[in-house]
Amino acid sequence: MAKKNMVIAQSGGPSSAINASIAGAISRAMAAGEIGKVYGAINGMQGFLDRKLIDISEQIKTSDDIDMLIHTPAQALGSSRYKIPKGADGDAVFARILGILKEYDVGYFFYNGGNDSMDTVCRVANYFKTRGEDVVAVGIPKTIDNDLAETDHTPGFGSAARYVAASIAEVYLDTIVYPLPAVTVMEVMGRNAGWLTAASALARDTGVPAPHLIYLPELPFDPNDFVGRASELIEKEGQIVVAVSEGLKYADGVYLADTGAAEDMFGHKTLGGVANILESLLKDRSGIKGLKSRAIMFSTLQRAAAHYASETDLSESYECGRRAVESALEGHSGVMITIQRESNEPYLIHYAEGALDNIANEEKTVPLEWISDGGTNVSQEMIDYLRPLVRGESSEHILGGLPRFFRFDWTKIVGPGE
Amino acid sequence: MAKKNMVIAQSGGPSSAINASIAGAISRAMAAGEIGKVYGAINGMQGFLDRKLIDISEQIKTSDDIDMLIHTPAQALGSSRYKIPKGADGDAVFARILGILKEYDVGYFFYNGGNDSMDTVCRVANYFKTRGEDVVAVGIPKTIDNDLAETDHTPGFGSAARYVAASIAEVYLDTIVYPLPAVTVMEVMGRNAGWLTAASALARDTGVPAPHLIYLPELPFDPNDFVGRASELIEKEGQIVVAVSEGLKYADGVYLADTGAAEDMFGHKTLGGVANILESLLKDRSGIKGLKSRAIMFSTLQRAAAHYASETDLSESYECGRRAVESALEGHSGVMITIQRESNEPYLIHYAEGALDNIANEEKTVPLEWISDGGTNVSQEMIDYLRPLVRGESSEHILGGLPRFFRFDWTKIVGPGE
Repeated sequence: MAKKNMVIAQSGGPSSAINASIAGAISRAMAAGEIGKVYGAINGMQGFLDRKLIDISEQIKTSDDIDMLIHTPAQALGSSRYKIPKGADGDAVFARILGILKEYDVGYFFYNGGNDSMDTVCRVANYFKTRGEDVVAVGIPKTIDNDLAETDHTPGFGSAARYVAASIAEVYLDTIVYPLPAVTVMEVMGRNAGWLTAASALARDTGVPAPHLIYLPELPFDPNDFVGRASELIEKEGQIVVAVSEGLKYADGVYLADTGAAEDMFGHKTLGGVANILESLLKDRSGIKGLKSRAIMFSTLQRAAAHYASETDLSESYECGRRAVESALEGHSGVMITIQRESNEPYLIHYAEGALDNIANEEKTVPLEWISDGGTNVSQEMIDYLRPLVRGESSEHILGGLPRFFRFDWTKIVGPGE
Repeated sequence: MAKKNMVIAQSGGPSSAINASIAGAISRAMAAGEIGKVYGAINGMQGFLDRKLIDISEQIKTSDDIDMLIHTPAQALGSSRYKIPKGADGDAVFARILGILKEYDVGYFFYNGGNDSMDTVCRVANYFKTRGEDVVAVGIPKTIDNDLAETDHTPGFGSAARYVAASIAEVYLDTIVYPLPAVTVMEVMGRNAGWLTAASALARDTGVPAPHLIYLPELPFDPNDFVGRASELIEKEGQIVVAVSEGLKYADGVYLADTGAAEDMFGHKTLGGVANILESLLKDRSGIKGLKSRAIMFSTLQRAAAHYASETDLSESYECGRRAVESALEGHSGVMITIQRESNEPYLIHYAEGALDNIANEEKTVPLEWISDGGTNVSQEMIDYLRPLVRGESSEHILGGLPRFFRFDWTKIVGPGE
């Protein structure tokens, strides 16, 4: 039987560990003899449908390239937000996908991303299965939001968590240098799941008391309670740091971010950051004289900060990619590689496969019993869960003090058989 | 002759290298036998006048404490923005300073900070000199702004520069994953001097083309020229990153930040970030359909990011502190330790003393001939100047993946002779 080729693509929002997964998959595929060509689709499913395929086997030359790829943030193959339509339109797309895979003699399809991406690869796998096609489709998890079902945690989360925790500790030290009442509100990503905001609690492991308050999107935000608690803390401590999730909602379910918009000089609604709203609330209602307030949005820095990645995260991400290829070679389709935790201390895990049917439309949020102190803190169980994930310093490729990144040449598009 | 004691204080805005300087001074003072007690004043000159003195010799126990202090961001002794008044009121303050120094039997006074701090220590030194008092006052430079005269560069600058450059490179990789027109404007500190914004150019050393445009406060900002250039770049490249200094001004001398304010839900002026203004300008006037724009403020992250400090910077900061003590022991007063560059490659420097009279009221801005491409880029001379300063990875005290910081106990205030 002739060797089948493989194609791998990435999707969803960037993380600083997502390329470790394709590095693992590529290494496993290139090292063994079971797979022919390793294609990469540029810009996810959208690019695949446009036949934007590159020959990865041609572009990865050395183990140094692989190592550099591991430490390069954001999808090295690009991303897309494309969703396959439902119904008859979707069937047409599935047929196109199958056609392209056959053209390129592909037997293994890998999709590396978050919830939406797992939905995509799930539907692709089911389509192949229903038609009895000899192509396997495997999901490789990725999201800084840590909200995928069936897995203990997701690749990309630990690195973002490490960066957020260390940065909050550093910023706290910055806020206390003047003996003046001050609040710094730091906004962390996570629309519906508060895992990354919860990870801000690890800042305390550095020996600082920050963050003093932590607000996750899993519970409704009560402005009066916030103003009361924060004012009391400022009176007592002088300077406080509040960590807040971008997805915070009021009791009526409305996102804070949708209510705080202000108009800029051109009439655009530009504000609306949750951190700005909390800062303004406190300035307006605390009654604390001379209160200095600041809002800091981590923005895309938190998901791109490869320079402070967690080595635990990178090596698990790599392993998820490697195992995805092994699962595919064993003919498993419609699965995603998962991480199963055995214990926190010592930190022990094993890898498994989860059925994409159980993952595709689920969103794993923070268990309410892990949120403490009236919705302003996280429990010891959460801390114990988080700690192992941020461990280990990654060794970037540094030259002259700055990182060196691996970049695929996205313009070297290849045709079938090339 | 009985040994004299010393006091050291810190002032101005935080940096991630400022504690390396006091670590150097403390080590030198404690290692040798010429100095008695090492006092630290909490919260700069304000705290000194309030007799908020701690006994550093009591709190620093091991060389590990010193090492941890080197890697702890923001003034470990706190800061203040207090300025000694001019005229008769100032003379009264000088008399109080002298009185406290005599109470505590202090012969050596060290002040670690930026422009305003150097002005303070200059006036203190001149007061002592005029009266023939046997107390020396020495300045230890610090500022991420790199705007002190008489020194090639300032401790704290290289670390902030390293963080800014690496983060901009990482964010660029984040911006290109979707094949959609996009602009990300990143705002860097520096009210009147553009050095740190210029350092964003080093992001290109990682292999990325960002930043595509760099705007420093040394030249007036022309909105039409910006919209023209940025639009053209977006049409050509797809996604671009713009680095902009917070201190950007229009041709009439008005700060952009003073014009862009919007009102939030409580009627506060909260916007006004330069990055927001540039982002809005482009959204409004470029005419590019579907342009995705984002403004990222580095805020205090850039000056607190000890986790990505430059080892070159930390070791020079340490050495400035150490040499300040040596200068004081030699009886030199009214001086600041300076760094003199001999060559870029190899990077060779030596340390010297600069007269505070020549430093106190100077602000060293970027030479206009180092700004290129119509005020949107920096020259090769600037790149050659910057490169050595970001070199070397610092080795934080990491435990469980996160840094451990050294913190003085600010509540252990001691009286004279204690």
